[in-house]
Amino acid sequence: MDRRGFMNAGAVLAALGAMNESLAQAGDRPAGVLGGAITDVPGVKVGHFTDTRRPTGCTVILTEEGATGGVDVRGAAPGTRETDLLAPTNLVEQVHAVLLSGGSAFGLDAAGGVVRWLEERGFGFPAGPARVPIVPAAILFDLGVGDTKIRPDASAGFQACEAASTSAPAEGSVGAGAGATVGKLFGMARAMKGGIGTAAVKVGGITVGAIVAVNAVGDVIDPSSGRVLAGTRTADGKQRMGLTRALLRGEVPPSMQAGMATTIGVIATDAVLTKAQAQKIAQMGHDGLARTIDPVHTMYDGDTLFALGTGKSRLTGNVNAIGTVAAAVTASAVLRAVLNATAWTSSALPTVPSARDLRD
Amino acid sequence: MDRRGFMNAGAVLAALGAMNESLAQAGDRPAGVLGGAITDVPGVKVGHFTDTRRPTGCTVILTEEGATGGVDVRGAAPGTRETDLLAPTNLVEQVHAVLLSGGSAFGLDAAGGVVRWLEERGFGFPAGPARVPIVPAAILFDLGVGDTKIRPDASAGFQACEAASTSAPAEGSVGAGAGATVGKLFGMARAMKGGIGTAAVKVGGITVGAIVAVNAVGDVIDPSSGRVLAGTRTADGKQRMGLTRALLRGEVPPSMQAGMATTIGVIATDAVLTKAQAQKIAQMGHDGLARTIDPVHTMYDGDTLFALGTGKSRLTGNVNAIGTVAAAVTASAVLRAVLNATAWTSSALPTVPSARDLRD
Repeated sequence: MDRRGFMNAGAVLAALGAMNESLAQAGDRPAGVLGGAITDVPGVKVGHFTDTRRPTGCTVILTEEGATGGVDVRGAAPGTRETDLLAPTNLVEQVHAVLLSGGSAFGLDAAGGVVRWLEERGFGFPAGPARVPIVPAAILFDLGVGDTKIRPDASAGFQACEAASTSAPAEGSVGAGAGATVGKLFGMARAMKGGIGTAAVKVGGITVGAIVAVNAVGDVIDPSSGRVLAGTRTADGKQRMGLTRALLRGEVPPSMQAGMATTIGVIATDAVLTKAQAQKIAQMGHDGLARTIDPVHTMYDGDTLFALGTGKSRLTGNVNAIGTVAAAVTASAVLRAVLNATAWTSSALPTVPSARDLRD
Repeated sequence: MDRRGFMNAGAVLAALGAMNESLAQAGDRPAGVLGGAITDVPGVKVGHFTDTRRPTGCTVILTEEGATGGVDVRGAAPGTRETDLLAPTNLVEQVHAVLLSGGSAFGLDAAGGVVRWLEERGFGFPAGPARVPIVPAAILFDLGVGDTKIRPDASAGFQACEAASTSAPAEGSVGAGAGATVGKLFGMARAMKGGIGTAAVKVGGITVGAIVAVNAVGDVIDPSSGRVLAGTRTADGKQRMGLTRALLRGEVPPSMQAGMATTIGVIATDAVLTKAQAQKIAQMGHDGLARTIDPVHTMYDGDTLFALGTGKSRLTGNVNAIGTVAAAVTASAVLRAVLNATAWTSSALPTVPSARDLRD
């Protein structure tokens, strides 16, 4: 790596530090939680579709002019579509959108609506007489919240595209995070609301952002203090218990089926990336999940992160610096997802509170 | 997952919590740093060879009667041997040792000495007329410390086997960690000593341990407080600077070549594992690196973790619980590696201090 490359790295990290310090002073977020939104990345639009009947929903990250894509699947129960083509050895270089959806495997159909929206507008991979929109997708399991027959379909994906813009997306209990929950090791009755969050940093002409729908079996932890922000609650439902301490007191979790959780997200940058670099950045993004979710990457989670390079900055940047920042914005997006979540109340089941609803 | 499975998980986590609490009271380690050693795992011996001339060295984890093996390579500059056979689709089920070594790619030769030691004693995969010892290995780059012509060879690997026992191995600046350093983003002149550390937890009849040689480009961080234990120092060499804050002040790292770092380790358990489970546990172990090293898994690091199941407990356990504990013992092993390290002094270069040498 040359000196110029490292100066880019230095600039990125310097701005990251500056942002950390200003946010630490802001007060109502834990120290180190970054601001910004993935839509700060030139070439990226985001749209949510939220189905309030359950709730569930989906979130599209549109890069309709094309972005180099990568993916890293670290959870053991993933639900995905069009991820194999992202392997650096495979043909297609550019993706036109990524879809994140609730609804478990059923939610993968929502990607079809994104494909239709793109086709109608002439976006896609030129393949002889057709243009084929490339839309990788990943789902999370939120069927434990409300009527399992309600899940995002092609119409939901299409509507998410219709709603997409370069404005900072709503966070919390919307889109792919609408039905998300966390801290499910002791069952839904003691879980808390997950959600969707975003964050971004711009420095040295390069912006790196992330959007993450957090639906983990584990607790969400503030890495600056080790404090649980949202996770499994005590049996009376009034406090965050901290999984380890609760188990120490002899509490035994009830049975749980595989595939009940999953955290999914997209990292985007306007740097010029190769497919292999995008994959590496997606990998390093998972370190952001590891620092804020515990446990994570379990057999119950299908944790999947995509990385997109729009190239709009025309700068190649430095994959180490971008990956380091990717981990940081991913971590911040996780924290913002639960800090912005709102309680889920239904007639059939106990309320699932959010981080806002519980005092320490 | 059935209830019995989760009770195992509960027991593991309960004991983990108990250990955390007792250690938090012990005082001289940060809260949450686990005790124990990987040699607490029945069926596992560890031996170091330390070449004090440089220093460099290697560490063998002996499972000469065979252990199910898995591996996960997350760094971008790995140096490995016999990792492909660990893929769950491949033939060999049992490994007889894992070797961790300094010396960069040259150090892979030390595995040959382990193979010879095992062959002489009749251990190995029965292959027609021969028994072929299976010895996966990974190296770290420590050629920045002392004479680059001195590196572990087959004799070093053999001597590590001769030294192997079920006693708790020495920690700090010995074996594969002898020449390890951390915080190298601003060059060796501002780095601190890395080392090798271990930790283990036993519960419900299952023991999970780890041994990690820490040689990262990043800082080593206590996840309970966010404090840097060892990493890049300020320009006067007197304090840990914290990479982000230093870059904020406008400091620009000098150039650095790829492959100058790498953290490597082994997780072992006496649970009965399949190869796929061993791989999953190695994966989750990397979350322990992510929680204690920042940045980690970069293009400069060849971060590689192995997982071994000796099956001596005859219990199948639960891969989620074992993986969660694997991440915890890996994190503790990282912290113990730098907390037990000692300074490196040479006539040619400035002293590289250890965590013990620097006050906050």
